[in-house]
Amino acid sequence: MKDVASAAGVALKTVSRVVNGEPGVHPATAERVRAAIDRLGYSRNESARVLRRGRTATIGLVIEDVADPFYSGLSRAVEDVVIDHGCLLLSGSSGEEPGRERELVETFCARRVDGLILVPAGDDHTYLRPELEAGTPAVFADRPPGAGIDADTVLTDNVGGARQAVRHLMTHGHRRIAMLGDDPAIFTAAQRLRGYREELGGLFDGRLVSMRPPGLDAAREELARMFALDDPPTALFTGNGRHTVTTLRALEGRRVALVGFDDFELADLLRPGVSVVAQDPSWMGRVSAELLFRRLRGDGGPSEHIELPVRLIPRGSGELAPEDQR
Amino acid sequence: MKDVASAAGVALKTVSRVVNGEPGVHPATAERVRAAIDRLGYSRNESARVLRRGRTATIGLVIEDVADPFYSGLSRAVEDVVIDHGCLLLSGSSGEEPGRERELVETFCARRVDGLILVPAGDDHTYLRPELEAGTPAVFADRPPGAGIDADTVLTDNVGGARQAVRHLMTHGHRRIAMLGDDPAIFTAAQRLRGYREELGGLFDGRLVSMRPPGLDAAREELARMFALDDPPTALFTGNGRHTVTTLRALEGRRVALVGFDDFELADLLRPGVSVVAQDPSWMGRVSAELLFRRLRGDGGPSEHIELPVRLIPRGSGELAPEDQR
Repeated sequence: MKDVASAAGVALKTVSRVVNGEPGVHPATAERVRAAIDRLGYSRNESARVLRRGRTATIGLVIEDVADPFYSGLSRAVEDVVIDHGCLLLSGSSGEEPGRERELVETFCARRVDGLILVPAGDDHTYLRPELEAGTPAVFADRPPGAGIDADTVLTDNVGGARQAVRHLMTHGHRRIAMLGDDPAIFTAAQRLRGYREELGGLFDGRLVSMRPPGLDAAREELARMFALDDPPTALFTGNGRHTVTTLRALEGRRVALVGFDDFELADLLRPGVSVVAQDPSWMGRVSAELLFRRLRGDGGPSEHIELPVRLIPRGSGELAPEDQR
Repeated sequence: MKDVASAAGVALKTVSRVVNGEPGVHPATAERVRAAIDRLGYSRNESARVLRRGRTATIGLVIEDVADPFYSGLSRAVEDVVIDHGCLLLSGSSGEEPGRERELVETFCARRVDGLILVPAGDDHTYLRPELEAGTPAVFADRPPGAGIDADTVLTDNVGGARQAVRHLMTHGHRRIAMLGDDPAIFTAAQRLRGYREELGGLFDGRLVSMRPPGLDAAREELARMFALDDPPTALFTGNGRHTVTTLRALEGRRVALVGFDDFELADLLRPGVSVVAQDPSWMGRVSAELLFRRLRGDGGPSEHIELPVRLIPRGSGELAPEDQR
């Protein structure tokens, strides 16, 4: 604005009046100011304009890793809704590190994002409380906020989905069903373990459970341990897309019944096709973003907690009988 | 600033002096202004701060579709470099629509991004010229800018990669090699077609070429047409990851030699494993972002044109002989 003022040969206050459409400026002077603005490209500085209105038309999104197809699907859906609302998306991957999550969120807030969509990595979000109290809406997707934080959530029916997967395997005759899932410090992993355990009831056997970050060596090690048991598993329940893929790789063609949590591309092209309980990451992204914009339009009702159902897709691997093993 | 001024009971100019560290303000008054700033959270408005410095510490990224694993891998790498430099990433998907690409770029520029990384959807970038001339650096990744625009590019050796794929199939005895690729209006598709044609030389037969957007129906139709020829193809070269997947799906287990451009997860788990010429999307993202930050640090040298090599990964499908078909 200073440059505009000096280019137009007027006071700073005059520029401010013209920009804000306030009266008291001679039309010829206003014209001169506008010409200077055009010349200097000031009018293109939308950041300054939206800041004046108190809104930045920017939404912040923190996910775990955009290179993971679950989160890139969610990202794309959020992006579409955000752009439909004439806003832009700032986004970042936490890499499952609470420190990086917090850093991203704080940077987004320092840039005055209008709202946040978070897939939290950590379980302490007290750092967010001042922002929430100052009226910045936040939607927690995939995982809820830590204790003491009241915010909208859009989660998957993780317990029900795991129960459905285990029930499906039991229906096909399995009693020895192992679970290979992620670190139970992750909300979704813990919930799926809970569903697995609940559905198995008296059939639950802790030796058939492995909850570790995904990795080929880990999967090989755990499968070797389980298959060496006197009563080895005849079926596997894998806790997320990454675990399904590493488990399939570790099985090296060994035929064993399997249902995975999360669908993935090419699941239908493997032999046998991989049966899954499928989440819809686009749906989760869309619902989260739409809820956020409802808040931005002024909906001040109590926090909403949306739970999205999963869908069982039988493709072959989950329908193998115990006697099909080899 | 107006709110701060009224909260502290001082003139707007006084707030401005305190914020900018200018002299002429009584220490007690300055303290009052600082207290009001803290109270109102004005100090957190980093946007305003960076705008004053003339930099926004924001980079804009336009890709084709973040839900496509090639682009999500590229995105993640760009994001990592951007965050390492203390900046944030605004990103958007063009969905292969030139209009949306331009809209995203113009919105990013209106937000005064410090630099741009583009996977262009269109082939006319004259709209970018004022920004480039104003000193906003732009790196074109995966595809070059349209005619008349001089900018840094980071591309894959598309011609060489296609030649390598076709040569590999010829080495395994194939003479009837079909290509299923994308719309040749897309730079990479046209380049790969060129490499395919160059390598085949006199063996080139236009009836064995299909260049269409990826889709299961399209793939089925084209394969049926080609396999109905008197001298049908014994091998396929698929022009990108999407085409490889739809082609595999359309083949419905039919055994035919195949080399795809682009690697994809699970390519090794299919039977036979899928041979590919692999790009490294993370590498492309990293190189593009690092080049951009070099420009932002003041490197004003002539435009650089970096070409990244591909790597042939034999996994079985590309090593089938013509007589293995069934």
